Amino acid sequence: MSRRNEIPPRSGTAFRLNEGQTLIVTDPKGEQVADLLAFNAGDVREVISGGRSLDYASKLFLTTGDPLYSNRSNIMLDIISDDCGRHDFLLTPCSKDTFRIIYGDEDPHRGCFGNLAAALEPYGIEEDMIPTAFNVFMNVQVNGDTGELRVDPPLSKAGDSIALKARMDLIIGLTACSALQSNGGSFKPIEWEIVG
Amino acid sequence: MSRRNEIPPRSGTAFRLNEGQTLIVTDPKGEQVADLLAFNAGDVREVISGGRSLDYASKLFLTTGDPLYSNRSNIMLDIISDDCGRHDFLLTPCSKDTFRIIYGDEDPHRGCFGNLAAALEPYGIEEDMIPTAFNVFMNVQVNGDTGELRVDPPLSKAGDSIALKARMDLIIGLTACSALQSNGGSFKPIEWEIVG
Repeated sequence: MSRRNEIPPRSGTAFRLNEGQTLIVTDPKGEQVADLLAFNAGDVREVISGGRSLDYASKLFLTTGDPLYSNRSNIMLDIISDDCGRHDFLLTPCSKDTFRIIYGDEDPHRGCFGNLAAALEPYGIEEDMIPTAFNVFMNVQVNGDTGELRVDPPLSKAGDSIALKARMDLIIGLTACSALQSNGGSFKPIEWEIVG
Repeated sequence: MSRRNEIPPRSGTAFRLNEGQTLIVTDPKGEQVADLLAFNAGDVREVISGGRSLDYASKLFLTTGDPLYSNRSNIMLDIISDDCGRHDFLLTPCSKDTFRIIYGDEDPHRGCFGNLAAALEPYGIEEDMIPTAFNVFMNVQVNGDTGELRVDPPLSKAGDSIALKARMDLIIGLTACSALQSNGGSFKPIEWEIVG
Protein backbone atom coordinates (compact mmCIF):
# COMPACT_ATOMS: atom_id res chain seq x y z
CA MET A 1 0.00 0.00 0.00
CA SER A 2 1.41 3.38 -0.92
CA ARG A 3 -0.20 6.75 -1.36
CA ARG A 4 1.58 10.01 -2.06
CA ASN A 5 0.39 12.88 0.17
CA GLU A 6 1.12 16.59 -0.12
CA ILE A 7 1.73 19.03 2.71
CA PRO A 8 0.86 22.50 1.37
CA PRO A 9 3.39 25.34 1.89
CA ARG A 10 3.66 26.63 5.50
CA SER A 11 1.54 23.82 6.96
CA GLY A 12 1.97 20.50 8.75
CA THR A 13 0.39 17.14 9.46
CA ALA A 14 0.61 14.15 11.78
CA PHE A 15 0.03 10.43 11.20
CA ARG A 16 0.82 6.99 12.51
CA LEU A 17 3.82 5.00 11.22
CA ASN A 18 3.95 1.40 12.38
CA GLU A 19 7.07 -0.58 13.23
CA GLY A 20 8.62 -1.92 10.02
CA GLN A 21 6.96 0.64 7.75
CA THR A 22 9.06 3.14 5.83
CA LEU A 23 8.30 6.84 5.57
CA ILE A 24 9.49 8.53 2.40
CA VAL A 25 9.74 12.33 2.51
CA THR A 26 10.17 14.04 -0.85
CA ASP A 27 11.02 17.62 -1.80
CA PRO A 28 9.03 17.95 -5.06
CA LYS A 29 10.34 21.37 -6.13
CA GLY A 30 13.76 21.49 -4.45
CA GLU A 31 15.20 23.67 -1.65
CA GLN A 32 12.37 23.03 0.82
CA VAL A 33 12.70 21.93 4.46
CA ALA A 34 10.44 19.47 6.33
CA ASP A 35 10.58 19.39 10.15
CA LEU A 36 10.09 15.81 11.37
CA LEU A 37 9.06 14.74 14.89
CA ALA A 38 8.51 11.21 16.20
CA PHE A 39 6.75 10.01 19.35
CA ASN A 40 6.31 6.47 20.67
CA ALA A 41 2.67 5.70 19.73
CA GLY A 42 2.27 3.66 22.93
CA ASP A 43 3.67 6.36 25.25
CA VAL A 44 4.09 9.81 23.74
CA ARG A 45 6.42 10.90 26.54
CA GLU A 46 9.09 9.00 24.59
CA VAL A 47 10.21 11.39 21.87
CA ILE A 48 12.90 11.87 19.25
CA SER A 49 16.13 13.31 20.69
CA GLY A 50 18.71 15.28 18.73
CA GLY A 51 21.02 15.37 21.73
CA ARG A 52 21.11 11.58 22.03
CA SER A 53 21.26 10.93 18.26
CA LEU A 54 24.18 13.31 17.69
CA ASP A 55 25.99 12.07 20.82
CA TYR A 56 25.81 8.40 19.84
CA ALA A 57 26.75 9.15 16.20
CA SER A 58 29.54 11.54 17.26
CA LYS A 59 28.61 13.74 14.29
CA LEU A 60 26.21 16.53 13.35
CA PHE A 61 25.11 15.38 9.89
CA LEU A 62 23.09 12.17 9.87
CA THR A 63 22.40 10.23 6.67
CA THR A 64 21.93 6.69 5.28
CA GLY A 65 22.71 4.09 7.94
CA ASP A 66 22.29 6.41 10.90
CA PRO A 67 19.64 5.79 13.57
CA LEU A 68 17.46 8.47 15.18
CA TYR A 69 17.25 7.84 18.94
CA SER A 70 14.59 8.75 21.50
CA ASN A 71 15.08 10.50 24.84
CA ARG A 72 15.06 6.96 26.32
CA SER A 73 17.97 5.94 24.03
CA ASN A 74 15.83 3.59 21.93
CA ILE A 75 16.10 3.69 18.14
CA MET A 76 12.91 5.17 16.68
CA LEU A 77 13.87 5.38 12.99
CA ASP A 78 16.71 4.28 10.74
CA ILE A 79 17.65 6.39 7.72
CA ILE A 80 17.73 3.76 4.98
CA SER A 81 18.23 5.99 1.93
CA ASP A 82 18.99 9.64 1.37
CA ASP A 83 19.30 11.49 -1.96
CA CYS A 84 20.32 14.78 -0.35
CA GLY A 85 22.71 13.97 2.49
CA ARG A 86 22.31 17.22 4.39
CA HIS A 87 19.81 17.69 7.20
CA ASP A 88 19.82 19.56 10.50
CA PHE A 89 19.26 18.30 14.03
CA LEU A 90 20.33 21.41 15.96
CA LEU A 91 17.63 24.02 15.63
CA THR A 92 14.08 24.11 16.97
CA PRO A 93 11.04 24.30 14.69
CA CYS A 94 10.39 27.86 13.58
CA SER A 95 7.65 29.49 15.63
CA LYS A 96 5.92 32.78 16.39
CA ASP A 97 8.93 33.50 18.58
CA THR A 98 11.42 32.68 15.80
CA PHE A 99 9.72 35.15 13.50
CA ARG A 100 9.55 37.74 16.30
CA ILE A 101 13.14 37.30 17.55
CA ILE A 102 15.04 36.52 14.33
CA TYR A 103 12.91 38.16 11.61
CA GLY A 104 11.37 41.01 13.68
CA ASP A 105 7.84 40.23 12.43
CA GLU A 106 5.11 42.11 14.28
CA ASP A 107 2.28 39.72 13.42
CA PRO A 108 4.21 36.45 13.12
CA HIS A 109 3.11 33.20 11.47
CA ARG A 110 2.69 30.27 13.87
CA GLY A 111 5.47 28.48 11.98
CA CYS A 112 6.37 24.80 12.00
CA PHE A 113 6.03 24.77 15.77
CA GLY A 114 2.41 25.96 15.64
CA ASN A 115 1.65 23.64 12.73
CA LEU A 116 3.15 20.65 14.56
CA ALA A 117 1.38 21.51 17.82
CA ALA A 118 -1.99 21.70 16.05
CA ALA A 119 -1.44 18.47 14.11
CA LEU A 120 -0.19 16.54 17.16
CA GLU A 121 -2.80 17.79 19.64
CA PRO A 122 -5.32 15.03 18.74
CA TYR A 123 -2.67 12.48 19.77
CA GLY A 124 -2.41 13.91 23.30
CA ILE A 125 0.87 15.70 22.58
CA GLU A 126 1.15 19.13 24.20
CA GLU A 127 3.25 22.08 23.02
CA ASP A 128 5.77 21.67 25.85
CA MET A 129 6.47 18.10 24.72
CA ILE A 130 7.75 19.24 21.30
CA PRO A 131 11.56 18.94 21.14
CA THR A 132 14.12 19.96 18.54
CA ALA A 133 12.99 18.33 15.28
CA PHE A 134 15.00 16.40 12.72
CA ASN A 135 14.94 19.07 10.04
CA VAL A 136 14.91 17.17 6.76
CA PHE A 137 16.80 18.97 3.95
CA MET A 138 17.70 21.90 6.26
CA ASN A 139 21.19 23.17 5.46
CA VAL A 140 22.83 24.69 8.52
CA GLN A 141 26.44 25.64 7.91
CA VAL A 142 28.61 25.37 11.02
CA ASN A 143 31.89 27.16 11.59
CA GLY A 144 33.76 24.81 13.92
CA ASP A 145 36.20 27.52 15.01
CA THR A 146 33.83 30.34 15.89
CA GLY A 147 30.69 28.26 16.39
CA GLU A 148 28.77 30.49 13.97
CA LEU A 149 25.60 28.92 12.54
CA ARG A 150 24.29 30.06 9.15
CA VAL A 151 21.10 28.80 7.55
CA ASP A 152 21.71 28.36 3.82
CA PRO A 153 19.28 27.21 1.11
CA PRO A 154 18.77 23.42 1.17
CA LEU A 155 20.97 21.29 -1.06
CA SER A 156 17.92 19.22 -2.07
CA LYS A 157 17.01 19.17 -5.74
CA ALA A 158 13.49 18.66 -7.11
CA GLY A 159 12.47 15.07 -6.45
CA ASP A 160 15.07 14.31 -3.77
CA SER A 161 13.83 11.91 -1.07
CA ILE A 162 14.87 10.51 2.28
CA ALA A 163 13.51 7.17 3.53
CA LEU A 164 13.20 6.36 7.24
CA LYS A 165 12.21 2.93 8.55
CA ALA A 166 10.29 2.76 11.83
CA ARG A 167 11.77 0.62 14.61
CA MET A 168 8.71 1.08 16.83
CA ASP A 169 5.09 2.20 16.39
CA LEU A 170 5.25 5.96 16.01
CA ILE A 171 3.25 9.13 15.76
CA ILE A 172 5.00 11.32 13.19
CA GLY A 173 4.69 15.10 12.87
CA LEU A 174 5.84 16.58 9.55
CA THR A 175 5.79 20.04 8.01
CA ALA A 176 6.48 22.04 4.89
CA CYS A 177 8.65 24.63 6.63
CA SER A 178 7.41 28.18 7.15
CA ALA A 179 10.74 30.03 7.46
CA LEU A 180 11.98 31.94 4.40
CA GLN A 181 15.61 31.64 5.49
CA SER A 182 15.46 27.83 5.58
CA ASN A 183 14.01 27.42 2.12
CA GLY A 184 16.01 29.75 -0.10
CA GLY A 185 13.38 32.51 0.08
CA SER A 186 10.16 30.83 -1.07
CA PHE A 187 7.53 28.54 0.40
CA LYS A 188 6.93 25.16 -1.24
CA PRO A 189 5.09 21.92 -0.50
CA ILE A 190 6.50 18.65 0.85
CA GLU A 191 5.33 15.17 -0.17
CA TRP A 192 5.30 12.01 1.92
CA GLU A 193 4.21 8.42 1.61
CA ILE A 194 4.25 5.29 3.74
CA VAL A 195 5.58 2.08 2.24
CA GLY A 196 5.18 -1.38 3.74
CA MET B 1 24.05 35.68 51.44
CA SER B 2 26.54 33.33 49.85
CA ARG B 3 27.63 29.81 50.66
CA ARG B 4 30.01 27.65 48.64
CA ASN B 5 28.74 24.10 48.05
CA GLU B 6 30.59 21.10 46.66
CA ILE B 7 29.20 18.43 44.34
CA PRO B 8 31.35 15.30 44.85
CA PRO B 9 32.76 13.54 41.75
CA ARG B 10 30.16 11.62 39.66
CA SER B 11 27.16 13.02 41.55
CA GLY B 12 24.54 15.74 41.19
CA THR B 13 22.20 18.04 43.06
CA ALA B 14 19.15 20.26 42.58
CA PHE B 15 18.12 23.53 44.22
CA ARG B 16 15.98 26.60 43.79
CA LEU B 17 17.37 29.78 42.20
CA ASN B 18 15.09 32.81 42.44
CA GLU B 19 14.66 35.52 39.83
CA GLY B 20 17.47 38.05 40.17
CA GLN B 21 19.83 35.69 41.99
CA THR B 22 23.10 34.66 40.38
CA LEU B 23 24.44 31.11 40.27
CA ILE B 24 28.21 30.78 40.20
CA VAL B 25 29.57 27.42 39.02
CA THR B 26 33.27 26.84 39.69
CA ASP B 27 35.67 24.15 38.50
CA PRO B 28 37.97 23.90 41.55
CA LYS B 29 40.59 21.58 40.04
CA GLY B 30 40.29 22.30 36.32
CA GLU B 31 39.12 20.17 33.35
CA GLN B 32 35.81 19.13 34.92
CA VAL B 33 32.34 19.38 33.32
CA ALA B 34 29.06 20.31 35.08
CA ASP B 35 25.77 19.54 33.34
CA LEU B 36 23.23 22.29 34.08
CA LEU B 37 19.44 22.04 33.73
CA ALA B 38 16.83 24.71 34.50
CA PHE B 39 13.08 24.39 34.96
CA ASN B 40 10.49 27.12 35.63
CA ALA B 41 9.83 26.71 39.39
CA GLY B 42 6.17 27.63 38.85
CA ASP B 43 5.58 25.16 35.99
CA VAL B 44 8.30 22.57 35.46
CA ARG B 45 7.03 21.76 31.96
CA GLU B 46 8.91 24.91 30.93
CA VAL B 47 12.52 23.81 30.55
CA ILE B 48 15.87 24.98 29.22
CA SER B 49 16.20 24.50 25.43
CA GLY B 50 19.47 24.13 23.56
CA GLY B 51 17.64 24.19 20.24
CA ARG B 52 16.05 27.57 20.94
CA SER B 53 19.13 29.09 22.58
CA LEU B 54 21.45 28.15 19.71
CA ASP B 55 18.89 29.17 17.08
CA TYR B 56 18.34 32.65 18.52
CA ALA B 57 22.08 33.18 19.10
CA SER B 58 22.96 31.78 15.64
CA LYS B 59 26.04 30.17 17.19
CA LEU B 60 27.08 27.01 19.03
CA PHE B 61 29.31 28.46 21.73
CA LEU B 62 27.50 30.64 24.27
CA THR B 63 29.34 32.91 26.70
CA THR B 64 29.12 36.24 28.56
CA GLY B 65 26.12 38.25 27.34
CA ASP B 66 24.24 35.30 25.90
CA PRO B 67 20.81 34.25 27.22
CA LEU B 68 19.67 30.67 27.78
CA TYR B 69 16.10 30.26 26.51
CA SER B 70 13.33 27.88 27.52
CA ASN B 71 11.22 25.67 25.26
CA ARG B 72 8.63 28.51 25.46
CA SER B 73 11.21 31.02 24.15
CA ASN B 74 11.48 32.85 27.47
CA ILE B 75 14.90 33.78 28.84
CA MET B 76 15.66 31.63 31.89
CA LEU B 77 19.27 32.66 32.58
CA ASP B 78 21.77 35.23 31.33
CA ILE B 79 25.47 34.40 31.30
CA ILE B 80 26.94 37.45 33.05
CA SER B 81 30.56 36.34 33.37
CA ASP B 82 32.63 33.44 32.10
CA ASP B 83 36.30 32.70 32.81
CA CYS B 84 36.44 29.71 30.45
CA GLY B 85 34.47 30.65 27.32
CA ARG B 86 33.84 27.13 26.11
CA HIS B 87 30.76 25.12 26.97
CA ASP B 88 28.55 22.65 25.09
CA PHE B 89 24.83 22.75 24.37
CA LEU B 90 24.64 19.86 21.86
CA LEU B 91 24.99 16.60 23.76
CA THR B 92 22.69 14.93 26.27
CA PRO B 93 23.75 14.18 29.85
CA CYS B 94 25.80 11.00 30.04
CA SER B 95 23.68 8.05 31.16
CA LYS B 96 23.66 4.29 31.57
CA ASP B 97 23.00 4.21 27.82
CA THR B 98 25.93 6.51 27.05
CA PHE B 99 28.29 4.23 28.91
CA ARG B 100 26.73 1.18 27.24
CA ILE B 101 26.67 2.56 23.68
CA ILE B 102 29.82 4.73 23.60
CA TYR B 103 32.08 3.12 26.22
CA GLY B 104 30.83 -0.50 26.01
CA ASP B 105 30.44 -0.79 29.80
CA GLU B 106 28.61 -3.91 30.95
CA ASP B 107 27.57 -2.58 34.36
CA PRO B 108 27.30 1.12 33.58
CA HIS B 109 27.18 4.06 36.03
CA ARG B 110 23.89 5.98 36.05
CA GLY B 111 25.79 9.03 34.86
CA CYS B 112 24.74 12.68 34.95
CA PHE B 113 21.32 11.68 33.64
CA GLY B 114 20.68 9.33 36.57
CA ASN B 115 22.12 11.84 39.02
CA LEU B 116 19.94 14.63 37.64
CA ALA B 117 16.82 12.45 37.58
CA ALA B 118 17.33 11.48 41.25
CA ALA B 119 18.02 15.05 42.35
CA LEU B 120 15.07 16.52 40.41
CA GLU B 121 12.50 13.87 41.33
CA PRO B 122 11.47 15.65 44.58
CA TYR B 123 10.50 18.67 42.43
CA GLY B 124 8.06 16.61 40.35
CA ILE B 125 10.39 16.37 37.36
CA GLU B 126 10.32 12.99 35.62
CA GLU B 127 13.11 11.39 33.57
CA ASP B 128 11.31 11.98 30.28
CA MET B 129 11.24 15.73 31.01
CA ILE B 130 15.06 15.98 31.09
CA PRO B 131 16.33 17.66 27.89
CA THR B 132 19.81 18.30 26.54
CA ALA B 133 21.69 20.13 29.29
CA PHE B 134 23.87 23.21 29.10
CA ASN B 135 27.18 21.43 29.67
CA VAL B 136 29.33 23.91 31.55
CA PHE B 137 33.07 23.66 30.68
CA MET B 138 32.41 20.78 28.21
CA ASN B 139 34.72 21.08 25.20
CA VAL B 140 33.13 19.58 22.10
CA GLN B 141 35.19 20.17 18.98
CA VAL B 142 33.10 20.47 15.83
CA ASN B 143 34.33 19.89 12.29
CA GLY B 144 32.07 22.13 10.23
CA ASP B 145 32.89 20.34 6.98
CA THR B 146 32.38 16.71 8.00
CA GLY B 147 30.15 17.32 11.03
CA GLU B 148 32.43 15.19 13.21
CA LEU B 149 32.08 15.80 16.96
CA ARG B 150 35.01 15.12 19.27
CA VAL B 151 34.91 15.47 23.05
CA ASP B 152 38.20 17.00 24.21
CA PRO B 153 39.35 17.81 27.77
CA PRO B 154 37.75 21.01 29.09
CA LEU B 155 39.63 24.28 28.64
CA SER B 156 38.75 25.27 32.21
CA LYS B 157 41.64 25.86 34.59
CA ALA B 158 41.49 25.37 38.37
CA GLY B 159 39.25 28.07 39.85
CA ASP B 160 37.50 29.07 36.60
CA SER B 161 33.88 30.12 37.08
CA ILE B 162 30.79 30.97 35.08
CA ALA B 163 28.04 33.19 36.52
CA LEU B 164 24.41 32.92 35.39
CA LYS B 165 21.69 35.34 36.52
CA ALA B 166 18.15 34.00 36.81
CA ARG B 167 15.44 35.81 34.84
CA MET B 168 12.66 33.76 36.45
CA ASP B 169 12.26 31.55 39.55
CA LEU B 170 14.01 28.30 38.65
CA ILE B 171 14.72 24.77 39.78
CA ILE B 172 18.34 24.05 38.83
CA GLY B 173 19.88 20.61 38.33
CA LEU B 174 23.70 20.50 38.40
CA THR B 175 26.30 17.71 38.28
CA ALA B 176 29.96 16.92 38.55
CA CYS B 177 30.11 14.95 35.28
CA SER B 178 30.55 11.17 35.31
CA ALA B 179 32.03 10.63 31.83
CA LEU B 180 35.80 10.12 31.60
CA GLN B 181 35.93 11.45 28.04
CA SER B 182 34.42 14.80 29.04
CA ASN B 183 36.83 15.48 31.89
CA GLY B 184 40.25 14.62 30.55
CA GLY B 185 40.24 11.14 32.11
CA SER B 186 39.57 11.75 35.82
CA PHE B 187 36.57 12.53 38.01
CA LYS B 188 36.59 15.75 40.04
CA PRO B 189 34.15 17.81 42.10
CA ILE B 190 32.26 20.94 41.07
CA GLU B 191 31.49 23.91 43.35
CA TRP B 192 28.53 26.25 43.23
CA GLU B 193 27.10 29.16 45.15
CA ILE B 194 24.13 31.48 44.96
CA VAL B 195 24.70 35.22 45.21
CA GLY B 196 21.97 37.83 45.75
